[in-house]
Amino acid sequence: MPDFESQRIFGVVIRQARERLHLSQEDLAAEAGLHRTYISLLERGRRTPSLTVIIQLATALELSATKLLDAFEQERDRQASS
Amino acid sequence: MPDFESQRIFGVVIRQARERLHLSQEDLAAEAGLHRTYISLLERGRRTPSLTVIIQLATALELSATKLLDAFEQERDRQASS
Repeated sequence: MPDFESQRIFGVVIRQARERLHLSQEDLAAEAGLHRTYISLLERGRRTPSLTVIIQLATALELSATKLLDAFEQERDRQASS
Repeated sequence: MPDFESQRIFGVVIRQARERLHLSQEDLAAEAGLHRTYISLLERGRRTPSLTVIIQLATALELSATKLLDAFEQERDRQASS
């Protein structure tokens, strides 16, 4: 079953990391080997990424998958406590 | 496209973490709210987990998702250098 809250927060984190690198959705899609439409859906929390996609996104965002999940859990905890 | 090498390594890490807690596949399945058959397929590298499943497994294994990905990347790096 999809976990919509996790999807939404993961989308926020991807958008933040992408904007930090001044990449467009199209740039990130090309770097990660994914479709621009899929990046847009991910950032809007409409898709749940697989481990494979998490690794592709992390690489394109110049992060390890661990760092990306750490940013995700920090954002989740931040939202939970606010 | 699935990344069979990542799937295989993720499976190894799940099995190690499960055995460290002296859990059977059935125990882990029950804790994580997943099917035992799915745990078996994951551990054998036959399935790629979604973010949702990664979170469910981490919780059941008393880890954060970050720690689980860190164990995954460490195992990947260890195998790459050996």
